[in-house]
Amino acid sequence: MLDRLSLNYQTRLCAVIGNPISHSMSPAIHNAGFAELGLDFAYFPCEVDDVKAMLDGMRAMHNFRGLSVTIPHKVAAMQYVDEVVAADRVIGSINTIVKQDGKLIGMGTDGPGALKALTDAGVELSGKVVLMLGCGGAARAIAFTLAQQSGLAELCLLDIDAQMLQGLASDLRTHTDAEICAETMNDGTLAAAMARADLIVHCTPIGMHPKEDATLVPAELFRPGQVVFDIVYNPLQTRLLAEAEARGLKTISGVEMFINQAVLQFEIFTGGPAPEEVMRRVVMERLNQ
Amino acid sequence: MLDRLSLNYQTRLCAVIGNPISHSMSPAIHNAGFAELGLDFAYFPCEVDDVKAMLDGMRAMHNFRGLSVTIPHKVAAMQYVDEVVAADRVIGSINTIVKQDGKLIGMGTDGPGALKALTDAGVELSGKVVLMLGCGGAARAIAFTLAQQSGLAELCLLDIDAQMLQGLASDLRTHTDAEICAETMNDGTLAAAMARADLIVHCTPIGMHPKEDATLVPAELFRPGQVVFDIVYNPLQTRLLAEAEARGLKTISGVEMFINQAVLQFEIFTGGPAPEEVMRRVVMERLNQ
Repeated sequence: MLDRLSLNYQTRLCAVIGNPISHSMSPAIHNAGFAELGLDFAYFPCEVDDVKAMLDGMRAMHNFRGLSVTIPHKVAAMQYVDEVVAADRVIGSINTIVKQDGKLIGMGTDGPGALKALTDAGVELSGKVVLMLGCGGAARAIAFTLAQQSGLAELCLLDIDAQMLQGLASDLRTHTDAEICAETMNDGTLAAAMARADLIVHCTPIGMHPKEDATLVPAELFRPGQVVFDIVYNPLQTRLLAEAEARGLKTISGVEMFINQAVLQFEIFTGGPAPEEVMRRVVMERLNQ
Repeated sequence: MLDRLSLNYQTRLCAVIGNPISHSMSPAIHNAGFAELGLDFAYFPCEVDDVKAMLDGMRAMHNFRGLSVTIPHKVAAMQYVDEVVAADRVIGSINTIVKQDGKLIGMGTDGPGALKALTDAGVELSGKVVLMLGCGGAARAIAFTLAQQSGLAELCLLDIDAQMLQGLASDLRTHTDAEICAETMNDGTLAAAMARADLIVHCTPIGMHPKEDATLVPAELFRPGQVVFDIVYNPLQTRLLAEAEARGLKTISGVEMFINQAVLQFEIFTGGPAPEEVMRRVVMERLNQ
């Protein structure tokens, strides 16, 4: 069923676009999921610069079903779809496009994927103080999801870029009811925020391969009972998470968010439950290579 | 190598567009050819109405290599490619688009496929009188190829549609050196043309499934030594060919042209020789089902 010889007019086509695209694990993850369920879908990677033309082509191909969008197209793609899900409009980026009745609907699964990673790990969010380190694209998605859906006591944002910081804080205050604090990051504001946080969500590239030695948070700032979530997934355990774990804290790797955003995409593309364990195995095999 | 799980950023994508597309044998033929040679290509069918958008998408996808174009897009596709091979411009339709250095080049393989079917069958064309029955899209492609490349004594066109007939005759006279005659088809002109023809090329839908009982040429008009080529390939042997064969004439089925146009496309897409026997086997298996 699932060899290339069987590609036929009923095969639902999916793709991931970005540039570069050679590193993307999405084709392996989704195709493994389709194979596991015996679904007649095929998912291929496309290096793309012209997002508008790509989406026009997706609209034209009647059997094209869904698209994953990765760097550098997550912001630009929004303007070429027919509709963006309300919750994602203010986030300002999308990573998923699905065709419904000929229309392209854009949405994001990074925020929901992060939330699912937290709840799957048994993290209670209601009434808690969350510290977000970094205010870039992924941070925006996660911040909005947490602010809208989790009943936080407070969401505290730190970033060294004052403009990005105040932009996100202002958008969160305008569009959610959450209690927001926002401060330019330095040693003092970081220490003060760490003293109050129940959950730390790290959304900067610090600690990512090939700079595994770096960490943003001095280990002495950790306090018992804190949970540390790092959206970096390469390496699977960053220095931040290793030091938190060494102090007995609960930690969650970015790979959980990565797997969950793919699971949610798969369910949007196919309209049914994803074979999460198979998808997880593909990711782990790739990351452990 | 060639399952869907292995679709990757280096996989060269090809497709066929048309509407309807469910009947197309092209995906099975080309994918079998890629598999035979171990080439990392994937070919999928797409029902498409908006040809311009499809071609824009093809341009945007860096790993998109080639497109087959079928009914009803063979004429419209010409205006959306970046270049049409000179020989095909005056024919007025294309069935093949290949991307070279980011540009879409349109061309036709129906004419060359027909010529190859004739030469593979050992038919000598130089100095011969060819009678073409029908002046539609496929006839135009075949007529131009024969008029330009085969040193015919005369190319005689018959059609019941005087406007199409005179249009093709005029284009052939303008753009080729061949001796052209053109007459509106009726019992008298058909009998007269059959009396002079060495090769009859049948390019109308008469005799095609589900009207296998029909034939345009009364059997008594056949003369010894004539060759009869019918571009219809479903059924493999039309009534026209059966009656010609019963009189001892050499006959060539449209399936030979169909296979050869696919072989030529494959070679355009891949830049190397096609595994013709494998492609032929796929076509024959499908048609004998």
